[in-house]
Amino acid sequence: MIQIFTDYGLNGPYIGQLHAAIARVAPDASAIDLMHDAPARDPFRSAYLLAALAADIRPDSVCLAVVDPGVGGERPPVIVSVDGKRFVGPGNGLFEILQRRSSRAKAWTIDWRPEKLSASFHGRDLFAPVAAMLARDEWPSCSPLGEGWRENPGRAGANWPDDLAEAIYIDGFGNVMTGLRTAGLSARAKVEVAGKLFSRVRTFGDVTESQGFWYENSLGLVEIAVNGGSAAQQYGIEAGAPVVLRN
Amino acid sequence: MIQIFTDYGLNGPYIGQLHAAIARVAPDASAIDLMHDAPARDPFRSAYLLAALAADIRPDSVCLAVVDPGVGGERPPVIVSVDGKRFVGPGNGLFEILQRRSSRAKAWTIDWRPEKLSASFHGRDLFAPVAAMLARDEWPSCSPLGEGWRENPGRAGANWPDDLAEAIYIDGFGNVMTGLRTAGLSARAKVEVAGKLFSRVRTFGDVTESQGFWYENSLGLVEIAVNGGSAAQQYGIEAGAPVVLRN
Amino acid sequence: MIQIFTDYGLNGPYIGQLHAAIARVAPDASAIDLMHDAPARDPFRSAYLLAALAADIRPDSVCLAVVDPGVGGERPPVIVSVDGKRFVGPGNGLFEILQRRSSRAKAWTIDWRPEKLSASFHGRDLFAPVAAMLARDEWPSCSPLGEGWRENPGRAGANWPDDLAEAIYIDGFGNVMTGLRTAGLSARAKVEVAGKLFSRVRTFGDVTESQGFWYENSLGLVEIAVNGGSAAQQYGIEAGAPVVLRN
Repeated sequence: MIQIFTDYGLNGPYIGQLHAAIARVAPDASAIDLMHDAPARDPFRSAYLLAALAADIRPDSVCLAVVDPGVGGERPPVIVSVDGKRFVGPGNGLFEILQRRSSRAKAWTIDWRPEKLSASFHGRDLFAPVAAMLARDEWPSCSPLGEGWRENPGRAGANWPDDLAEAIYIDGFGNVMTGLRTAGLSARAKVEVAGKLFSRVRTFGDVTESQGFWYENSLGLVEIAVNGGSAAQQYGIEAGAPVVLRN
Repeated sequence: MIQIFTDYGLNGPYIGQLHAAIARVAPDASAIDLMHDAPARDPFRSAYLLAALAADIRPDSVCLAVVDPGVGGERPPVIVSVDGKRFVGPGNGLFEILQRRSSRAKAWTIDWRPEKLSASFHGRDLFAPVAAMLARDEWPSCSPLGEGWRENPGRAGANWPDDLAEAIYIDGFGNVMTGLRTAGLSARAKVEVAGKLFSRVRTFGDVTESQGFWYENSLGLVEIAVNGGSAAQQYGIEAGAPVVLRN
Repeated sequence: MIQIFTDYGLNGPYIGQLHAAIARVAPDASAIDLMHDAPARDPFRSAYLLAALAADIRPDSVCLAVVDPGVGGERPPVIVSVDGKRFVGPGNGLFEILQRRSSRAKAWTIDWRPEKLSASFHGRDLFAPVAAMLARDEWPSCSPLGEGWRENPGRAGANWPDDLAEAIYIDGFGNVMTGLRTAGLSARAKVEVAGKLFSRVRTFGDVTESQGFWYENSLGLVEIAVNGGSAAQQYGIEAGAPVVLRN
């Protein structure tokens, strides 16, 4: 199975072209759209979202992940293997947080190139066929990136924090996902965003209508929400807003 | 085959996570997105839409349907069987109209629980795996809901009307679906919405550009539309607007 | 494989119903959503987009394409075969540019009718089942359209230009696709849109942030874009805006 994570948006032919490119190489592989509104042109925030979503990616499957502001630029195309899951995409930091949270991460640069590589759509021309090859248990030609790569302070993402104290994604209901994992946070921990302090509850039904709160969302992240409403609107929270933990 | 009907919207990882949860249990089942913009947090209006859509659901297939304002609240998780089609979702009235229109409906509460049940995403954790089990012809442990349940005046939806004289859904073209079935309505029946009276025609091409009308839509419902335009905009009709039949 | 191209938009049950109709006839065929925001009710501009996308459609596959302002009107339902790819949809000019660019195009009118044909949703009732039949290598009853048809000056699209010097599609990033193919254009060719002159570059990374340019997009079309921004917004370009080549 291939799961696809991009910032392409749902409009236009791009997602369909990814699927067609996969089907060309691996007609029997099923391909699932995990998410196509990752923080746009923003591998930094996307890296925290992808790391949280990885728990829902099956151990034997492949994740095609593309958030790539400098498409065709200097970043290498990479394959990253984390706990048996293989990720394919640009080596611009997008897989940094995933790798850091695993003790068994390995990485390769992809040497294989398609017959025709467009200047602007490496998702279709390079990453999708490679993901499809991996889904067939075929490996394109590639070169291992040694441990030195991960410890290179100059590499993309090397100096990013382990958890990101920011709003990283606002969903269609106006719920505000942060880059903070809930593991280790107490039931009494409070979260401050946009000058407002939120207490922790278990779920929406535990508060009255229109009340704001924070809770452990289904990805294991701190999320600000409002029962029956939009937290983003009600409190004026935008992606990138800083988040402060108050114990 | 599994067909999925929710109010989750198309953004975010939620639909992708439903598909992944299904594939985990039933890798060979095909899963189709029927609709993800059902009336949000509104099992009442969604019930009429789902009942109309059921004609397009195959007799041997499974429908995963989730519109659930009180996720994790008091409503039971249910399986409803109608004419050989099996529906899985919250027992909050969402399947009420479907059941009422069939003489062979049966219902069960789902006793099975997953190893890990999040507080807020029962679609992924509970309903999707159950739908996948049913698609494999495996039944989770569950308890039959007797006829008494359906006749219980306190149950969700018991006092809802057989047809809903309201705008229940406005599509991307601005066409206004109502909760009224066309069966039995004469060619001369008129429909009044937002202070405007609409006559019946067969289809868009039967009127001049920009003219409003009502017709039997492809779901068998009364729909207000405009040839080449948006009825919702042109007449200021919003979801929930009352509809009156004039003969 | 079936690839689906429509102007239905992503909301509502329509795309899901197409997939269900396909699965009913060809349960084993994979169906990919190529694009559902083709220029709405506009077979003219959609024809140029579809012709450009056809390069990404596999030779042995079927394309279900529906952009149909006069649904159920006078246009014939057709099958068009171009270079081994079979297209199914309304004969309203949508396949004109595709056909014209091939020396081996053939066309048929579809005589087959489903048991139940709704007045407004031929995509679901007629075109989807036919596409599914073709994917199974079964042919519905149909009648060949002779060469005379293609040369008939009265047929839809007969007088459309070979390339369309207009903005035909604006994607979610604000990139502006035109109906002009890049083949044969020199590296020094300039493009004028909305009173602004654009020079050619290879890709986004070749200019500074916020700079506008034109480039050969991944479909082989002239596209106006801005590095890190929206060309449509920055220059006030709307679909339909005329484009002038300056050498």
